[in-house]
Amino acid sequence: MQPHESARGPHVLRQINSRAVLRAIRERSPARVADLMQATGLSRPAVTRAVAELRDAGLVADVDETAQVSMGRPAQWIRFRAEAGYVVGVDVGSHKVVAMVADLSGKVVASRQMATGERLLQSVRDTIAEALAKADLTGDDVWAIVVGTPGIVEESSGEVLLAPGIPGLAHLPVLDELRTITPSPVLIENDINLAVLGERWCGAAVGSDSLVFVHWGVRIGAGIIIDGKPYRGANGAAGEIGFVDVFSTPDGPDPEPLLGARAANAVSEKGAFEHAVGSQTIAELADAEDVAAVFAAATDGDPAALEVVDRIAARFARGLAALLLILDPREVIIGGGLSRAGETLLAAIDRHLRPRILTSPRLVLSDLGSDAVALGAVRRALDHAEQRLP
Amino acid sequence: MQPHESARGPHVLRQINSRAVLRAIRERSPARVADLMQATGLSRPAVTRAVAELRDAGLVADVDETAQVSMGRPAQWIRFRAEAGYVVGVDVGSHKVVAMVADLSGKVVASRQMATGERLLQSVRDTIAEALAKADLTGDDVWAIVVGTPGIVEESSGEVLLAPGIPGLAHLPVLDELRTITPSPVLIENDINLAVLGERWCGAAVGSDSLVFVHWGVRIGAGIIIDGKPYRGANGAAGEIGFVDVFSTPDGPDPEPLLGARAANAVSEKGAFEHAVGSQTIAELADAEDVAAVFAAATDGDPAALEVVDRIAARFARGLAALLLILDPREVIIGGGLSRAGETLLAAIDRHLRPRILTSPRLVLSDLGSDAVALGAVRRALDHAEQRLP
Repeated sequence: MQPHESARGPHVLRQINSRAVLRAIRERSPARVADLMQATGLSRPAVTRAVAELRDAGLVADVDETAQVSMGRPAQWIRFRAEAGYVVGVDVGSHKVVAMVADLSGKVVASRQMATGERLLQSVRDTIAEALAKADLTGDDVWAIVVGTPGIVEESSGEVLLAPGIPGLAHLPVLDELRTITPSPVLIENDINLAVLGERWCGAAVGSDSLVFVHWGVRIGAGIIIDGKPYRGANGAAGEIGFVDVFSTPDGPDPEPLLGARAANAVSEKGAFEHAVGSQTIAELADAEDVAAVFAAATDGDPAALEVVDRIAARFARGLAALLLILDPREVIIGGGLSRAGETLLAAIDRHLRPRILTSPRLVLSDLGSDAVALGAVRRALDHAEQRLP
Repeated sequence: MQPHESARGPHVLRQINSRAVLRAIRERSPARVADLMQATGLSRPAVTRAVAELRDAGLVADVDETAQVSMGRPAQWIRFRAEAGYVVGVDVGSHKVVAMVADLSGKVVASRQMATGERLLQSVRDTIAEALAKADLTGDDVWAIVVGTPGIVEESSGEVLLAPGIPGLAHLPVLDELRTITPSPVLIENDINLAVLGERWCGAAVGSDSLVFVHWGVRIGAGIIIDGKPYRGANGAAGEIGFVDVFSTPDGPDPEPLLGARAANAVSEKGAFEHAVGSQTIAELADAEDVAAVFAAATDGDPAALEVVDRIAARFARGLAALLLILDPREVIIGGGLSRAGETLLAAIDRHLRPRILTSPRLVLSDLGSDAVALGAVRRALDHAEQRLP
């Protein structure tokens, strides 16, 4: 909305002006009154009043004089108080929990990682608490917490409906537990849906409007950005390519139903595609225990390792092709543990992928690696926290 | 935008009021001034002035007195002049061209079908011309033409980049040719993307915001609605599931590249999934010449025919499952020639599909059958034409 100096009630008007001035300060921080007049088109009195209100609300502050000296001639510089609030992004994995604390500018000020203990919820709570303590903060300083977890998450309730990756996670009262940490909003979201947000925020495809992030590790799944927004599907289950069956014969038997009668046991199920290209399979194909060693040998030119990488890339390319034929994204990021295999694997995937698809998306490796989920959770939490700004 | 009676320039104000009154008339047609006052919140003078302006513009008219008598007490009834403009929706197929002419209310007033002649563009032109002649209209009466065609259509240029279904169509100057018919906008779009619009407008999933239409005939492809809008992908190539390979063995050979070096020959290519479940395959599986006869026999309970239907449904379900795992839509429509096989086939697909997916979309057959593309083209043309209304 454009700022106005007339034609509205004084309260609404002041709020619109405050919003415009705050946005201008955040974009420039620090900024002078003259900068803000130019950026907003408001008069000096209107800007000055908005700054005063924002200062009272604790959202902006004057840059102290020592810093001002180094900036040249002494004018009043105003900065956004990114420390006015904090958000927490959490990545709950099968082996570890990561919590990142960031200020309102998105700067990560503390990070904590813990092995997942037997009591999953307690591990999550503890990791968040320790990360906050490390930053000398309490739950009252937190404006939003977003938790990423494997599985299908129901958006409205935040309930994890199905989480094959983490036994015992489905239907746990995650939100109830975390809401004891802070009075602010706590959200839960599928981890791969967050990873794609992270990469779009500060990773391999900044600002992309048409993006697929494929997580390739023990699990396989995809996070989708359409028109610049996360696409979750009608039930929060979009991108579940790990379950796509691209390998059985045309008239092979149908799989056992995952849901319905067997829902209770579904946590132990793997998808067909996951099964065919997961890290376990790579180890089996290479007759090796350590997948990383296979890729290292391939990068060094070992013919046997190269052949394994080529075969696994060919299989992966088949599942990826299905995704790309259906979604036709502009950019594709490959992340998850397997993406650490680097360019040797990427080149092989690319070679097998191109004959299978009709378009030419940009194919890149994850920039954020194992931080993608937590950073995506921070980004999502910031989006939420920003609703509290004027 | 809400209508206003103050606080704006008189010109803008009148336009806003006209728009509100026209919308109210279109929703109710016919309507009385009192109805319009209630619907818009405008005063009697403001409504009367807007009606006068709309009448001058030829967009509304008084209902003639004879009709008014039958409507009860004599008040002035005003109707939308749906005949103020027309649109044309065209379906260009490999064997036939269908053109439908509709008025601004969406009522189809004329329809014409012709076999595709050797000169494809001439066939399209002739079909449109004959449909218009049948309705006693000329190109000047037309507010928009939308043409549906197989293949990948570049949105900006309207160029058909790849059309395996219709030899010779790719890179034809379709738009240049059709722009000689009318001075109004002419658009071209992938036919299956239009079919889903048609079904959403007046077919099997009216108003659905999360919908996939799967065309199952000689070709296989999908049209996608996300958040109530058509989803085309970054290159207009979304939904090309006909090319998904769900049937070769894990380490089978890669397909020959479709694009690149062989692009020129791509028109003769079929997708792997199309190849495995297309109508030709069904005929081969049933050792029959007539696919329809196979389904008729299955519906009558013939065991051999039922087995063929079951096998083909199982194969189709596998490709469909890939689409549903990736997109997680709320509703799925199966259209195209095979959908005429009806409930026997649908039930078999459903049975094989459910174990393969994680969610429970509504699965239905096309309502519009072979009219889906032309009606979707009419809908798209109406959307365009409506931009000309106040």
